[in-house]
Amino acid sequence: MAPHDMSPSWIAGLYASIRARTEALAAPLSAEDQTVQSMADASPTKWHRAHTTWFFETFVLVPNLPGYALFDQRYGYLFNSYYEAVGPRHPRPSRGVLSRPGIAEIAAYRAHVDRAMGQLLDSDADPALAELVTLGLQHEQQHQELLLTDIKHAFAASPLAPFLLPAAPPAPPEALAPMGWIEVETGIHRVGHDGKGFSFDNEGPAHEVLLQGFALADRPVSNGEFLAFIEDDGYRRPELWLSDGWATAQTHQWEGPSYWRRDGSDWSVYTLNGHSAIRADEPVCHVSYYEAAAYAEWAGRRLPTEFEWEAAARLMGSDAAIDYPDLQTHPRPLSSGFHQDVWEWTASAYSPYPGYRPLDGALGEYNGKFMINQMVLRGRSCATPPGHERLTYRNFFQPSARWQFSGFRLAGD
Amino acid sequence: MAPHDMSPSWIAGLYASIRARTEALAAPLSAEDQTVQSMADASPTKWHRAHTTWFFETFVLVPNLPGYALFDQRYGYLFNSYYEAVGPRHPRPSRGVLSRPGIAEIAAYRAHVDRAMGQLLDSDADPALAELVTLGLQHEQQHQELLLTDIKHAFAASPLAPFLLPAAPPAPPEALAPMGWIEVETGIHRVGHDGKGFSFDNEGPAHEVLLQGFALADRPVSNGEFLAFIEDDGYRRPELWLSDGWATAQTHQWEGPSYWRRDGSDWSVYTLNGHSAIRADEPVCHVSYYEAAAYAEWAGRRLPTEFEWEAAARLMGSDAAIDYPDLQTHPRPLSSGFHQDVWEWTASAYSPYPGYRPLDGALGEYNGKFMINQMVLRGRSCATPPGHERLTYRNFFQPSARWQFSGFRLAGD
Amino acid sequence: MAPHDMSPSWIAGLYASIRARTEALAAPLSAEDQTVQSMADASPTKWHRAHTTWFFETFVLVPNLPGYALFDQRYGYLFNSYYEAVGPRHPRPSRGVLSRPGIAEIAAYRAHVDRAMGQLLDSDADPALAELVTLGLQHEQQHQELLLTDIKHAFAASPLAPFLLPAAPPAPPEALAPMGWIEVETGIHRVGHDGKGFSFDNEGPAHEVLLQGFALADRPVSNGEFLAFIEDDGYRRPELWLSDGWATAQTHQWEGPSYWRRDGSDWSVYTLNGHSAIRADEPVCHVSYYEAAAYAEWAGRRLPTEFEWEAAARLMGSDAAIDYPDLQTHPRPLSSGFHQDVWEWTASAYSPYPGYRPLDGALGEYNGKFMINQMVLRGRSCATPPGHERLTYRNFFQPSARWQFSGFRLAGD
Amino acid sequence: MAPHDMSPSWIAGLYASIRARTEALAAPLSAEDQTVQSMADASPTKWHRAHTTWFFETFVLVPNLPGYALFDQRYGYLFNSYYEAVGPRHPRPSRGVLSRPGIAEIAAYRAHVDRAMGQLLDSDADPALAELVTLGLQHEQQHQELLLTDIKHAFAASPLAPFLLPAAPPAPPEALAPMGWIEVETGIHRVGHDGKGFSFDNEGPAHEVLLQGFALADRPVSNGEFLAFIEDDGYRRPELWLSDGWATAQTHQWEGPSYWRRDGSDWSVYTLNGHSAIRADEPVCHVSYYEAAAYAEWAGRRLPTEFEWEAAARLMGSDAAIDYPDLQTHPRPLSSGFHQDVWEWTASAYSPYPGYRPLDGALGEYNGKFMINQMVLRGRSCATPPGHERLTYRNFFQPSARWQFSGFRLAGD
Repeated sequence: MAPHDMSPSWIAGLYASIRARTEALAAPLSAEDQTVQSMADASPTKWHRAHTTWFFETFVLVPNLPGYALFDQRYGYLFNSYYEAVGPRHPRPSRGVLSRPGIAEIAAYRAHVDRAMGQLLDSDADPALAELVTLGLQHEQQHQELLLTDIKHAFAASPLAPFLLPAAPPAPPEALAPMGWIEVETGIHRVGHDGKGFSFDNEGPAHEVLLQGFALADRPVSNGEFLAFIEDDGYRRPELWLSDGWATAQTHQWEGPSYWRRDGSDWSVYTLNGHSAIRADEPVCHVSYYEAAAYAEWAGRRLPTEFEWEAAARLMGSDAAIDYPDLQTHPRPLSSGFHQDVWEWTASAYSPYPGYRPLDGALGEYNGKFMINQMVLRGRSCATPPGHERLTYRNFFQPSARWQFSGFRLAGD
Repeated sequence: MAPHDMSPSWIAGLYASIRARTEALAAPLSAEDQTVQSMADASPTKWHRAHTTWFFETFVLVPNLPGYALFDQRYGYLFNSYYEAVGPRHPRPSRGVLSRPGIAEIAAYRAHVDRAMGQLLDSDADPALAELVTLGLQHEQQHQELLLTDIKHAFAASPLAPFLLPAAPPAPPEALAPMGWIEVETGIHRVGHDGKGFSFDNEGPAHEVLLQGFALADRPVSNGEFLAFIEDDGYRRPELWLSDGWATAQTHQWEGPSYWRRDGSDWSVYTLNGHSAIRADEPVCHVSYYEAAAYAEWAGRRLPTEFEWEAAARLMGSDAAIDYPDLQTHPRPLSSGFHQDVWEWTASAYSPYPGYRPLDGALGEYNGKFMINQMVLRGRSCATPPGHERLTYRNFFQPSARWQFSGFRLAGD
Repeated sequence: MAPHDMSPSWIAGLYASIRARTEALAAPLSAEDQTVQSMADASPTKWHRAHTTWFFETFVLVPNLPGYALFDQRYGYLFNSYYEAVGPRHPRPSRGVLSRPGIAEIAAYRAHVDRAMGQLLDSDADPALAELVTLGLQHEQQHQELLLTDIKHAFAASPLAPFLLPAAPPAPPEALAPMGWIEVETGIHRVGHDGKGFSFDNEGPAHEVLLQGFALADRPVSNGEFLAFIEDDGYRRPELWLSDGWATAQTHQWEGPSYWRRDGSDWSVYTLNGHSAIRADEPVCHVSYYEAAAYAEWAGRRLPTEFEWEAAARLMGSDAAIDYPDLQTHPRPLSSGFHQDVWEWTASAYSPYPGYRPLDGALGEYNGKFMINQMVLRGRSCATPPGHERLTYRNFFQPSARWQFSGFRLAGD
Repeated sequence: MAPHDMSPSWIAGLYASIRARTEALAAPLSAEDQTVQSMADASPTKWHRAHTTWFFETFVLVPNLPGYALFDQRYGYLFNSYYEAVGPRHPRPSRGVLSRPGIAEIAAYRAHVDRAMGQLLDSDADPALAELVTLGLQHEQQHQELLLTDIKHAFAASPLAPFLLPAAPPAPPEALAPMGWIEVETGIHRVGHDGKGFSFDNEGPAHEVLLQGFALADRPVSNGEFLAFIEDDGYRRPELWLSDGWATAQTHQWEGPSYWRRDGSDWSVYTLNGHSAIRADEPVCHVSYYEAAAYAEWAGRRLPTEFEWEAAARLMGSDAAIDYPDLQTHPRPLSSGFHQDVWEWTASAYSPYPGYRPLDGALGEYNGKFMINQMVLRGRSCATPPGHERLTYRNFFQPSARWQFSGFRLAGD
């Protein structure tokens, strides 16, 4: 990890801005909204706000700010997510039982920690501290995305189906260009993060891989294309599915992507802006790995590996910074390119790169211990905070997960 | 059902007073507190507030107040508890996912219904209406008790163990009088409600039963007595337990009543006023039927049937009105008598009385359909609203339930 | 307990005959058939054969036959059903994992115990021993019935649906007489076993009860009558059902009695003699308490209590001995009377009679510890060994159980 | 697929020999033993015998032998394992409920199919047929291994802990040589099956991979080494474990490998030859991927990828045929080399090779649809039929599986 600009004032400004964005995301949500937990994998909004604060308190302030007083010593038990080395913690599936602390106390907790962080950043220009703070900010950005996906899941579980923000007037439907193909020849490619600027530990070490020639679609699969799969009985043909995927789809009676609802012969979709009709030109979203793989089988294609994805993206010059809208709650219509508005499932299981070593200490639990039973997603989504995306970024979820803004693109040999 | 005083003004006053008491109970609870649900059997505070309101709206206003406009037509789905005849409803275990409507909307809902009820009670002096409103108020009183037991369960699930109200200064320990015995000879006794004044349908018809001679304790079992059972390995001796009880106790690793915690060789207890030491002179509380039955076996006694309880209570003149404190959050020390501060498990399964017929229409679902797999409790508890108690009252829960203020008294032959 | 004829030779003959009947029931079953367990509540045939033998070994031979050598000391762990006082035991749901001992070893075990029992009965004329042996034989008869119901459940779970015995040629359909009613006036009735001859402990003490006047059907409900309930959407109308019953029926997607299968607009039924058409004149069978209660509600009637059943049966002189066929595998067409070919659900929860005390020692676990969460059935079934029936007999199962030969009759006020 | 020797007589001989070996494995097992199923992942012995027979009937005889008559048309439903394209099938977890067909019928089924296969192989010298028969034989060999691991699991679930074969006299303990390291430099390696002779479809296409330099242990980890991990609290230190692994170990209360039992301070192990003491010089066996990964973390090493394993094995010339004992029921003491007596977990998720295409038709379900949520194991085990092993062989199981003979070896960078 070596962030670009490590000057104390730059870091302090970044800290203020990212912390403020979390509060802005939570602002439209009532105390009641911020309390609910709709499944074990999701967390209440106020828990996200407190947990990200606990991260700074535990890993930055306690070891680095002499005389720092914990806001409440009981919060360690409540807001530790999964760091075994830091001690026991409240069970994840029961976060929705915690009415206390309420949102006012959590706002005070955030203010307390922000004041202390300001004091620390004023007084300490150690690059190691800057790296640690950067990690905390990247961590908070990850939770900004989860805050959105988790409240979406909770809202969708309510018969009232509340929305987060009113819908913008819809853009007129666009005629989606046919899928194009990027062809890459057999050869050795360099993948992974080169250590310049921030990255998570799981993105390195950079290394070379030998890829067989392949073709990669120039954009993710669209709703319109996915509808054709549904209409061709894609959800009723076991031969298209992985065995575990078929079992999962039967158990949960999947008939379409999550949040889709069949109204007679049409489909509508629940979004953070309320219900709306399906738009054919948007990327299909909220599908599991299983559905992505079944679609690819149906289409006579396959999903790309994460290295194919990365190599093609590098060839296309896709690591240039892009100016994303600050707050998106739904994917925009598709265009070509590698950082669209949906995370893209890849065919790669989430494994360590050659020579990978986790961080020392409790932070070593950040990524490494999850390297099993999950698949890598590449790219970003509409819910990803602008600037958080990175060409080497490895997101990861279990193949059955659907509550993230997850889509996919096709590959072929 | 034939309430004592059916004058419109008397009913209107009672309505205002009972509705206000619900709001007073909820007042110390934050929006977050009112949202959480800690188990499928419990409901959020705000749900109780809304459901009791829905009851008046659905069963009183809609059929009786011409031109009444539903506050929100979607609320029927959200706040119907179990009335199949009224339509489908939100699944009970998922009430904690409903962040909307929030407590402000629910306050507005209550006000809307209260206004309409005021209008109706001003204009309609029909005795049948008075009976229906009385049923709604008795129903609301039942939910006042559940509101307290449910928030107690939720608070206890939080590592912060918040309290509802600060503890009053404790009374000095009293020397508890030894258990006395009321002896009743074999004979025919009249049991059940005679139809004068309000009762629930399950309390009648009044009828005669033939009871074999028995003796009944003059008070419930105390904490001190129950501690002796624990210390005599009562929770480790299967021969004392019903088979299902033993299995339940093993599965949940019970070692004492609910909310008790062993601290070394001492026990403390979580109450709605915070943690405190066990008092030997209080009735044992938050025990299941299984624990009550195991204790009785250990003590060489048994639990009374509900008719033994009622017959002995009648003999002792226990249907006189008693002036209970308005808000109790914990049982007071024991004295002799039949309306102590804990519900008392009886050995009677919850069954219909001879000639029982449920109410007509949807309200017929109020009691009758639960007459299986539950045991009758008699008396009242500290959480029962004053005036709600009745000698013929039949409370009922599954034998494994512990979150009510439930104790027991012994009987012998 | 005071069996009729306690002479040693009479007991020895009875022992030989009942033990032989068990072996005769198992004889058509292969080693594989005798090994399977199709649900936690059922046991493999060979387990029944061994468990009944273990009962004699443990409760009769070990305490009474000096020098008796256990056949295999490990069998206590394997074949103890639920006697906590006798020690730990193999978990009930895993009995189907026990391939060893095989049926040959179990036959040898039975022979070993039978030889020792012969020796004991030759040498010991103590009436207490006779009583104990009688209990063991009644116990074995209970398992003879379970052997049949359990293998029926297992066979029905196989796509091959094997039969136990070939079907006899069917009797021509009979015109079933309309249901008649036995009217009983309000009054005091004596119920329970009077202690003359054998009974289980749960049948006593005999005592008086006061019954309100009632009418009881003179026969159980027939298949033809139950079909009318099904065709009137009985399984789709929640207002007819107890709340737990409705939930159970929905979870298991019940559409008719167990073993019934809808073939287009007709129904067929799996029996121990293979598949056959439904006969309208047979008693409905393999229904749960929930279905019985829903039917009664639909018919505008109710189920009788166990005391109503017994009182009416006594009035009708139904304690005369009846000469039942030795081996029945399916109920015969209905006639009037109280010991038909199906157990009859009553509205009585399984509770102790006034003054009930279980047997001393481990045998005290025989009945008492199950007196919760179960309903009483009266009468007998086609699978009950002839001579095992008794007017005061109390069978008991959970209200959801359907694998016994269980039907019901109606009552009214 | 292109088997070495495709002459009809050679294939016929191979067919006879492999089919006979299955029967020899089952021969010591009684009818009862062959019927039980101790968990959903395991199958009864007689099911394995029938399923392998159904494979030949369905995929070889029906399409290729004119006039072939199915032995029993109901067997397709019973003995189809997972081929969706062939039709519905009996649920896997309920195979233990099938008492019929019994072992005699299954022996007749095998004889019927063997006769028809003999007739077919006499009359048809088509190389495509030879390939298909070879696939069926390799399939049967896989089930020979499962037959042993499944009956081991069932026997171990019995308190009697029966053994399959009496134990051979133990070899004297050997002084195990310290673990040596095979060093492989960074470079391009060819992996996968080259198409000469038989392989499963998942072993190809052969292709090149770029491997970073690594070192691989010259033998698997031993019991003695694994005991040091246990004694160093390896099962109580979450920091050593993958997150899912820790959760699994806590849920199942793992304290050592499967079949190990702590007797005071010593450990014993259940084997197919009965209980015995742990031998330090044997490979550790019956460990999950999670335990393997935790051990590697503790040892400061890692698990190899499947390509590292294969590349090192090729370098060491490990594809030479080895003369294994015909029937092994327990791993022998360790020596150096790549085809020891335990399958070795690798760090590679089970994924398709570049360009992989499954077989056409129903046989395409053989491997491809399982390529998710499983990890690759390489090598062979003591239970693998001699001759079935292959350098490119890819075995695969879920990371929590322990009932296979699974161990592991270490790698380092």
